[in-house]
Amino acid sequence: MPTTLTLEEEFMNYVKKMGHYREAASLIAWDLRTGAPKKGVSQRSEVLGSLSSEFFNMSVSEEMQHFLTELRKDEEWGSLHEVTQKTVKECEKQLSKFKNIPPEEYKAYVILTSQAESAWEKVKKDGDFDTFKPYLEKIVAYNRKYTEWKGYEGNKYNALLDDYEPGLTVDIIDDVFGKLKAALVPLLKEVVDASNQPETAFLFNFFPEEKQAAFSRHILEKMGYDFDAGRLDKTVHPFAIGLNPHDVRVTTKYDEHDFRTAVFGTIHEGGHALYEQNIAEKLINTPLCTGTSMGIHESQSLFWENFVGRHYAFWEHNYDTLKTFSDGQFDTVSLEDFYRGINVAGPSLIRIEADEMSYSLHIILRYELEKALINGELEVSDLPKAWNNKMKELFGIEPAHDGEGVLQDVHWPGGMFGYFPSYALGYIYAAQLKNAMLNDIPDFDKLLLKGELTPIKEWLTTHIHQYGKSKEPLELLHEATGEKLNPDHLITYLQEKYRRVYGIKK
Amino acid sequence: MPTTLTLEEEFMNYVKKMGHYREAASLIAWDLRTGAPKKGVSQRSEVLGSLSSEFFNMSVSEEMQHFLTELRKDEEWGSLHEVTQKTVKECEKQLSKFKNIPPEEYKAYVILTSQAESAWEKVKKDGDFDTFKPYLEKIVAYNRKYTEWKGYEGNKYNALLDDYEPGLTVDIIDDVFGKLKAALVPLLKEVVDASNQPETAFLFNFFPEEKQAAFSRHILEKMGYDFDAGRLDKTVHPFAIGLNPHDVRVTTKYDEHDFRTAVFGTIHEGGHALYEQNIAEKLINTPLCTGTSMGIHESQSLFWENFVGRHYAFWEHNYDTLKTFSDGQFDTVSLEDFYRGINVAGPSLIRIEADEMSYSLHIILRYELEKALINGELEVSDLPKAWNNKMKELFGIEPAHDGEGVLQDVHWPGGMFGYFPSYALGYIYAAQLKNAMLNDIPDFDKLLLKGELTPIKEWLTTHIHQYGKSKEPLELLHEATGEKLNPDHLITYLQEKYRRVYGIKK
Repeated sequence: MPTTLTLEEEFMNYVKKMGHYREAASLIAWDLRTGAPKKGVSQRSEVLGSLSSEFFNMSVSEEMQHFLTELRKDEEWGSLHEVTQKTVKECEKQLSKFKNIPPEEYKAYVILTSQAESAWEKVKKDGDFDTFKPYLEKIVAYNRKYTEWKGYEGNKYNALLDDYEPGLTVDIIDDVFGKLKAALVPLLKEVVDASNQPETAFLFNFFPEEKQAAFSRHILEKMGYDFDAGRLDKTVHPFAIGLNPHDVRVTTKYDEHDFRTAVFGTIHEGGHALYEQNIAEKLINTPLCTGTSMGIHESQSLFWENFVGRHYAFWEHNYDTLKTFSDGQFDTVSLEDFYRGINVAGPSLIRIEADEMSYSLHIILRYELEKALINGELEVSDLPKAWNNKMKELFGIEPAHDGEGVLQDVHWPGGMFGYFPSYALGYIYAAQLKNAMLNDIPDFDKLLLKGELTPIKEWLTTHIHQYGKSKEPLELLHEATGEKLNPDHLITYLQEKYRRVYGIKK
Repeated sequence: MPTTLTLEEEFMNYVKKMGHYREAASLIAWDLRTGAPKKGVSQRSEVLGSLSSEFFNMSVSEEMQHFLTELRKDEEWGSLHEVTQKTVKECEKQLSKFKNIPPEEYKAYVILTSQAESAWEKVKKDGDFDTFKPYLEKIVAYNRKYTEWKGYEGNKYNALLDDYEPGLTVDIIDDVFGKLKAALVPLLKEVVDASNQPETAFLFNFFPEEKQAAFSRHILEKMGYDFDAGRLDKTVHPFAIGLNPHDVRVTTKYDEHDFRTAVFGTIHEGGHALYEQNIAEKLINTPLCTGTSMGIHESQSLFWENFVGRHYAFWEHNYDTLKTFSDGQFDTVSLEDFYRGINVAGPSLIRIEADEMSYSLHIILRYELEKALINGELEVSDLPKAWNNKMKELFGIEPAHDGEGVLQDVHWPGGMFGYFPSYALGYIYAAQLKNAMLNDIPDFDKLLLKGELTPIKEWLTTHIHQYGKSKEPLELLHEATGEKLNPDHLITYLQEKYRRVYGIKK
């Protein structure tokens, strides 16, 4: 490199190049899931492997270690730009995550999880846990060792939590999940026992795909999603992906006999996309240019899906529009019945089909089990039984086989221990943000009624989006709400909403 | 790297990784031209820059030079796999292309051509040559120096030809282009003077885009294009791109008032795509896994576009199908009139709008001018006048301004001297291949009449596609046809076809 560059500039060029590899890999991932020809998939996976391993190598290289050591020296550190300082910290975090893992163990684990996912794909339908068990045992064993390599304070599981939700600990989560469970289990029972159940037959009438797509685009535009910096495509498992803030793509799925899949799916992914589209320019080309955690990301998608998209006032404004897009399925359905129908709730076996009210219980179940697994308090062979017992405790129902029980999620086959709590944290964060937003936007409901969503997006950009990964989850939360993690807002919201939907008087 | 790998294996892994970067860059290029959000373009270009420069660095690195030196040693060379040997030769070629260019000069040239393209975009419409002249002067100056850095035998221009069409020289091209010119200039005059001109009004009737797209897909399938290893998308400037043989994508453009754009454009790009889809598996992950030259690639697209797609028998089979896709524009047009209409020919100012018969004359004009520029026999300031004189000589017409003359193509602003001849060579190769194919497939016309295109594709795969870049253009041509470069087949074909279309008796 030319000698005219400072060490800081060289470092920022280095991380920029890493970002370029990540961006190329993200485009490949998007393409693989939206229309890449099937025969090209295996070769493309090798390309992805090359880019990922180059990224990994650069994040633990001697060059990286040299940068981090030198930039931390007193004579350098004070003069660094704030973004550089935060970038150094992020790179240190990545380095510390990987540097103590024996390379052979890591490589074997990558292969193991890849094989475990394939094995899982084959057994999940029939629920053949015994065939899958040896894979999961090895994965759990690795994760137990990983917590030691990485190090932790307090509970072993904290090492894993830190990968997805930095700053969160078992102590904090035990407390808030405990409160949530104590409130939601009885609420779920109230709903089951309610005599006034919503009508739902109309939900399943035919709604042509292209009209669902048009309505989805319409809603994304109303949310403030920038189509000049993104696009909407069709996929099997919907996702949003930020290649950079100027190119954030949304995907959705269409079920012509359940419009909710596309409508609420698009709003959900649109919430993720607004986060990525509104990260500050100055963070581009740094590792800070992404969401700060899985949980904060989920808070954004859930805020839009539930606090906006499933709100009565939102449909007061949009129901007539939805009718113009549909083939007449809502003509004899009142707004009130529509609202109750889209908010139907109850016990369910499958997490991804669960409603807003009971979803967190699915997460609490998984959290309790994986925490016990990592701490050696539960063994893999006892897992299916433990799962079924917890299902009964929380939902009052049990799976007929492991395919609709312990084998339903890809996270454990994929080795993603520590990930699940983020989903429920997203609900809690979202409710806290909604509560804080009301201080600045007291006429929130009126805005929905008028279809004016811009102030909502702008509030979220001001308090969340712009910071990308430059602040940690609890730091963002505290600055936005003045609170630490607090499940009460979610509990109150769910109680009030679902007692109204089910006509339960308290 | 683990010591268990041989030098040959290490080298092949090294070039595989280069191929992975190229594949990622190709996907980005495809995405940029088919639907990437416009605000993301500038950041994506930086990503492309990083991948390209990594590719470049790897192709001239000390590591690469070490591989090439070691593998060339007697004790290694004899034991190498044939594909490895050809890969070594290809890498040597790339290295020799770049190693003598002073890095500063190369970098300045990349910037220059990028600026020149922007400047050209602005002036081409009004034909303001004077504003563009300083850029072109610098580009020509660089290319003159480049021929010296690279080295050549005989004519300086041979150094440039070798980049696009290895094995071809000025001596060979002067000879065949001379013969072509001597035949086509009078043929063009015959056509202009013919009393029996084709009807063309029906060509411009409304043909809905989605029906053109459906017909385009239908024809691609008939050609043997594998949609499980490709896809068809819409773009502004159509192209085909091979990411690897299992993912070769075609793009096309729709003009609802001229169906020929999409139909013949798709067949043309489909011809390129068949080449890339049918390269032998063993060449994947090597630099040989692509077309061997621009000219041979063009021979494949032109073969399908003209020898198949503009053939009478092809439409004997397909005209009724076309009618079912169209909105009735052909109902009163006989097959004969249709055939004559789609083969209308005549003098034209713009190369990319030229017909099959006169296209090569546009190329000959450019070849003669750039050869003179590189050899210092013509200066940039005299170029517009020289252009217009040659237009008069070849076509009997002159542009009203430089925008429809010397400024019309992106090749010179982009620094691509030596590229143009490949287009005309593609025509010549294609006619030679057709002639040779008739020995193996004497009932070629009957196959078209029956709509059986598979034997044609298979012949081209056997003689051309499978070899990728493992054989040079003239080597392939000789093995497929028993001939060296020979323009007579093209001349005979064009004379017979266009005298028939224009009812000229000789």
